Amino acid sequence: MPIALLSDFGLRDSYVGAMKGVLARLAPSATLIDLTHEIAPFDIVEGGLKLFQAYSQFPRKTVFVAVVDPGVGGSRRAILVETEDYYFVGPDNGLLSMALADQKIRRIVELKNDAYFLKPTSSTFHGRDIFAPVAAQLSQGLDPQAFGPELSAYQRHPAFVPELSQREIRGQILGFDRFGSAISNLHRHFLARHHQSPELRVEVAGVTLEGLKSHYSEAPPGRPFLIFGSSQLLEISLNQGSAQAALQLSRGESLRITLDT
Amino acid sequence: MPIALLSDFGLRDSYVGAMKGVLARLAPSATLIDLTHEIAPFDIVEGGLKLFQAYSQFPRKTVFVAVVDPGVGGSRRAILVETEDYYFVGPDNGLLSMALADQKIRRIVELKNDAYFLKPTSSTFHGRDIFAPVAAQLSQGLDPQAFGPELSAYQRHPAFVPELSQREIRGQILGFDRFGSAISNLHRHFLARHHQSPELRVEVAGVTLEGLKSHYSEAPPGRPFLIFGSSQLLEISLNQGSAQAALQLSRGESLRITLDT
Amino acid sequence: MPIALLSDFGLRDSYVGAMKGVLARLAPSATLIDLTHEIAPFDIVEGGLKLFQAYSQFPRKTVFVAVVDPGVGGSRRAILVETEDYYFVGPDNGLLSMALADQKIRRIVELKNDAYFLKPTSSTFHGRDIFAPVAAQLSQGLDPQAFGPELSAYQRHPAFVPELSQREIRGQILGFDRFGSAISNLHRHFLARHHQSPELRVEVAGVTLEGLKSHYSEAPPGRPFLIFGSSQLLEISLNQGSAQAALQLSRGESLRITLDT
Repeated sequence: MPIALLSDFGLRDSYVGAMKGVLARLAPSATLIDLTHEIAPFDIVEGGLKLFQAYSQFPRKTVFVAVVDPGVGGSRRAILVETEDYYFVGPDNGLLSMALADQKIRRIVELKNDAYFLKPTSSTFHGRDIFAPVAAQLSQGLDPQAFGPELSAYQRHPAFVPELSQREIRGQILGFDRFGSAISNLHRHFLARHHQSPELRVEVAGVTLEGLKSHYSEAPPGRPFLIFGSSQLLEISLNQGSAQAALQLSRGESLRITLDT
Repeated sequence: MPIALLSDFGLRDSYVGAMKGVLARLAPSATLIDLTHEIAPFDIVEGGLKLFQAYSQFPRKTVFVAVVDPGVGGSRRAILVETEDYYFVGPDNGLLSMALADQKIRRIVELKNDAYFLKPTSSTFHGRDIFAPVAAQLSQGLDPQAFGPELSAYQRHPAFVPELSQREIRGQILGFDRFGSAISNLHRHFLARHHQSPELRVEVAGVTLEGLKSHYSEAPPGRPFLIFGSSQLLEISLNQGSAQAALQLSRGESLRITLDT
Repeated sequence: MPIALLSDFGLRDSYVGAMKGVLARLAPSATLIDLTHEIAPFDIVEGGLKLFQAYSQFPRKTVFVAVVDPGVGGSRRAILVETEDYYFVGPDNGLLSMALADQKIRRIVELKNDAYFLKPTSSTFHGRDIFAPVAAQLSQGLDPQAFGPELSAYQRHPAFVPELSQREIRGQILGFDRFGSAISNLHRHFLARHHQSPELRVEVAGVTLEGLKSHYSEAPPGRPFLIFGSSQLLEISLNQGSAQAALQLSRGESLRITLDT
């Protein structure tokens, strides 16, 4: 089964290479697949979003190793989460929580048993010394219980959860893609549940966007529009242009949808 | 056999990761190899050039999936082309045409049979929902005919074809590499056929370059020179410097070779 | 066994893809793993450092192919070095020397036997035409002696070796990582051997840094500190910030440690 990797290590350093060396050594038969390593340094929200956008395409039993870890060497926990379909390994800082909110949780284990870590275990590179060896051994069939005690909960990051009141839904922009689309935390299913009116109307960055397109090509050029992107999140896009630039959007910017009362 | 991937998706998003998830799910035994995903957004010419520069090194039966697709969700066709040596899968917008011009075509199939697509099929991400599953199933041995009706021709991009008249050959710069070499559409075989005089003389960007080097180290530093690059295309290079910067070259700039009459 | 790749080819061109095509053709069962391809063009020191930082995590018998090759097509030799644990293939320009200094050398072979090269062999792309096919055939079990005559020594790059006198140790900064840590050529073992006093004191860029941290989180924010990084090299770091920016450090900058006399 594949081991899929996501980090903020970048591709210019050889840190990702070092992690893959460990994986190749301890899980020689595993297929290694990169989600991305170009998450902005320490950006848990971008990392969590991009993990969410890709994970569900993978075969069952894939082990995801996600490392965006500003607290490495400090007091944050290291965890392994077994869901109905997958394994997720990484720091317990909210990074995994957008994907996990979408999955049935089977077990959360704190990575405490250092028999499975590289020795000496550095305080600065848990991706190589803790997360990679745990993922490798997990993919080789080791029982999740071996790695440490069970936990009752994992850390959730608040950015991934829209706010809901009687009067409105308040979402936010989690990130942008290369084409300048702004991707929000408003999932198609969430909106279907809480927003009954036939027409969608979103206030963002001082403008109001109305109506939902289903194809880029439906939209007139130069005019930003709303669309559910390929991972079912509401996006603000521009046909062959950058909505981010056109509306001067930034990460964390709020999207307001007034509810009929 | 490998599945080789090229796109303009970039490596910061996890779109390439999502495509690979599909491939790992539907073709678990295939080796996945990246050509590049850093093609400039929507740049069909750069994509076609870089596919051409690498494809012929691969083992027979490799499946190439190339996605630079400004018309996604619109009316452009999706195709699969079987050549004597390889399979090529992608949008029919000229992206594949520089490589295909070099190969004996066996069959061109329009990807119409949605039984082989992911469901629901998004209108914005055919790389994941159409091209990846088709490539996966092709690599697993499915007959190309299964995917849709045969076509008599594929779209050719004019930038890849030099203009030839009695008096001159007019090529153009298709792109640059990281080292600043300018790569043209003038193939060694094309020039051998149409240019008989012993000395090569090229007018470009207001200067005339004369003579052909066969090693970088033959050229004096700081002086741009002509060389057939590693994929047999005429290049303008600078020994340990950037010809692009030195001559202020840009994409599409024409190269003129006067023919003896 | 894996074939691990490092180069300055970048990921926007398809040169790395072409090398992998050759490897997939000649060594279909090998696992291909990237260390990095984003070494600055022609930067042998950055390449050598990043090879050093990752290689030792790989399984025994891994073949490393490293190509940062300003002298391609000129008179520099092409070599293969067999060590107790690994094979290293690349230009003999010092690129391999930081990793090799750390390994027991078994054999150094000059790559001369062109029966194992691609034909025609370009003068500009030895990564594809010489190093990749040699690595592929080596990983398939070919005897190193087949590739050419033995050499008695390989080229060492002086930047990797600290200067030692009675009065001081003088190291230098070899490069930076994505997080802004400055990585020196001062290895923990080298310092343990030559620096006996209990407190470490380093002069660099006009400031004096004192004491060694063992965790990022031990350091007060905003204050640069000394730490042995994950590859046992002395680094100048800043807790969640860039030491490179804070101290305006540059590559090659010297680190001075006065010795007790």
